[in-house]
Amino acid sequence: MGALRSSLRTVREEQNCAALVTTADGKFFSNGYDLSWGQNRLDRLQLMSTELRALIRDLISLPMPTIAAVTGHASAAGLILALGHDYVLMRKDRGFLYMSEVDIGLVVPAWIVALIKSKVGSPAARREMVMKGRKLTAAEAKAMGIIDSAHDGAEETIGAAMKLADELAGRKWDGHAYAGNRMVVLREVLDSLSFDETVEATARKATSKL
Amino acid sequence: MGALRSSLRTVREEQNCAALVTTADGKFFSNGYDLSWGQNRLDRLQLMSTELRALIRDLISLPMPTIAAVTGHASAAGLILALGHDYVLMRKDRGFLYMSEVDIGLVVPAWIVALIKSKVGSPAARREMVMKGRKLTAAEAKAMGIIDSAHDGAEETIGAAMKLADELAGRKWDGHAYAGNRMVVLREVLDSLSFDETVEATARKATSKL
Amino acid sequence: MGALRSSLRTVREEQNCAALVTTADGKFFSNGYDLSWGQNRLDRLQLMSTELRALIRDLISLPMPTIAAVTGHASAAGLILALGHDYVLMRKDRGFLYMSEVDIGLVVPAWIVALIKSKVGSPAARREMVMKGRKLTAAEAKAMGIIDSAHDGAEETIGAAMKLADELAGRKWDGHAYAGNRMVVLREVLDSLSFDETVEATARKATSKL
Repeated sequence: MGALRSSLRTVREEQNCAALVTTADGKFFSNGYDLSWGQNRLDRLQLMSTELRALIRDLISLPMPTIAAVTGHASAAGLILALGHDYVLMRKDRGFLYMSEVDIGLVVPAWIVALIKSKVGSPAARREMVMKGRKLTAAEAKAMGIIDSAHDGAEETIGAAMKLADELAGRKWDGHAYAGNRMVVLREVLDSLSFDETVEATARKATSKL
Repeated sequence: MGALRSSLRTVREEQNCAALVTTADGKFFSNGYDLSWGQNRLDRLQLMSTELRALIRDLISLPMPTIAAVTGHASAAGLILALGHDYVLMRKDRGFLYMSEVDIGLVVPAWIVALIKSKVGSPAARREMVMKGRKLTAAEAKAMGIIDSAHDGAEETIGAAMKLADELAGRKWDGHAYAGNRMVVLREVLDSLSFDETVEATARKATSKL
Repeated sequence: MGALRSSLRTVREEQNCAALVTTADGKFFSNGYDLSWGQNRLDRLQLMSTELRALIRDLISLPMPTIAAVTGHASAAGLILALGHDYVLMRKDRGFLYMSEVDIGLVVPAWIVALIKSKVGSPAARREMVMKGRKLTAAEAKAMGIIDSAHDGAEETIGAAMKLADELAGRKWDGHAYAGNRMVVLREVLDSLSFDETVEATARKATSKL
C-alpha cells in the first residue's frame, strides 16, 4: 500500500495525467491485508488499517477520474481498494469479488460499510456481500450494480479501462472541481475514515490484558 | 409481540438453531398494531411502539440469519416486522404489503422510515410504500426490490424459506460475527430505535390538555 | 423563483387543490440560476441559493402531492427544482437533464447532493449526474431510476401528469399527513437546507480580499 500511495502522489503532481487506471498482473487484483503477517501483531493490523484508509482518502481527493481494471480476484481490503475508484471494470472469464470477513469470524469495519453503502445502492447486494460473504463473478456483480461493466478477459478489461480514461480525459475538467464534486458525493465515507473500531477494539482488549 | 420476543430469547439460547424462519397461519402474516385496542389509550400505543422496537432490536442482534415467510397480508407494523428479517420471501397468489398510515391520516415514525431506507434501495419504491400507501403484490414488491423472491403459494413460500435456512446454516458462521456484521449494516436503524416521535408527540398533546 | 414561491403560497391556501403539477412553456423546463446575472455579484448568488432552498422547503412541506412535467431542458438548479417534486415525468422526443457544474469548474453544494441521494437510488446514476456531468435523455433517466416515466411529447407529458394528479387527488388524503410522511422520507434533505457552503465559501473569500 505504501507503493500505491507513493504512485498516487506522483500522479497528483504530474500535469499531464488526466485519469488514473489501476490494475494488477496475474491471478489476483488484490486480496487485501496480509493477515498472516498481521496475525497476533496488533501493531501491524493497525498499520494496515491506517494505510488502507489513507489510500482511500487519497483516491477520493485525487484531482482526476479513477478507474479500477479488476483482472483477478479482489477480496476484502482488495475489493475495497477497487470500490474506492470512480469506475470499476472487471473481467468475466475468471476471478470474483469476495468480502471474506464473515467466513473467518470477523466483523467488517464501519468505514468499509460506509464505502459500500456509497457505492452499492441495493440493500440486497450489500447483504450478499457483507452478511452472506457471497463470491461474485463479474456478471453477477454487474447485475447487482456493484461494478460498471464486465469484459471478456484481462486484456479486454484493461482496453476498456484505457478507452474510458481517454473519454474522461477528453472532457478536460478542472481537477479540483472534479475532486470537489467527488468529495461531496462521498462525504459519508470521508467522515467515517478517521476511525476503525475493529482495530481499536482489539487494541483495547490487548491493552486490558496487560 | 411479547410471545414473539420470548420465542426469540429461546432461539438465541438454543445451541442447535442456525437460522430463524418466521411465518404465520391463515390469511394474514401480520397486520401490525391492534389500533382498536390502542384507540384513545395513549399508554397502549406507547407500549406497542416500545414492544415493536424491542422486537426489531432483538432481530437485528440475533446471532443467526433470519427469514420471513410472508404467507398472507402484511401491513403497517406487520410489514415492518417482515422487513426486520434478513430475507423476505412472499407468496404471490394472494396477500399484499401495505403501509396504511397515509390512508388513515397518520405519519410513519422516523425509525420505521430508517428501516425502510436500509432495506429498500429505490426512492420510488419508498415513495410508493410510505407516501402513496400502495398495496403491493409479491410480484410488484419483487420487481421494486422490496422482497427477495415470490412463490406460488403458502407451502412453496415456507418450503423455499426452509431451504434457504438450510443453505445458510450450512455455512456454519460464528453467530456473533454474523450479528456483528448485520449490526454494522443496519447501524442507522439501531441508532433510530430509541425514540418514536409519533407516540411522544401524542403524549405531549395529551399531557398539555390536562 | 419569487413568482413560483408566491404560487405555492396560493396553492397551499386553496382548499380545492389536491395535487400540484409544475410545467413550463417552450424549449426549457428550467435552466436554473441566471449565472450571468450573478457573475461577480456575490449578493445575487447568495440570494438565488437562499430562494432555491426556500422553494425546495416549500415543496417538501406542501400538503398535497407534487408532480413535475418536464417538457424541455432541465439543468443545474432547474433539474433540482424538478427533482424537488414527488413525481417527475419527462418528454422523450427532446430535452435533457444536465448537472452542468463540473463542466464549468463548479462544485455542487452538499444540500443538492443530499436531495439527489434522497431521490436517485443508484450510486452509478448519481456519479453520471454529478461527477460526469452527463446529459441524460428521458429514456436514459428512466432507465437509471432518476425520473418516473418518459412520454412521447410535451402534450403527452402534461396529459400524463394531469391524469396522475387526478388519481392522487382521488385518494383524498389528509394534506398534513401527506406532507408529514414526505417530510420524514426527506428528512436528510430538510436537515441540509439551512446551509450552502459553496456560496458561503465564496463569501468568505470575497470578504478576506477586502
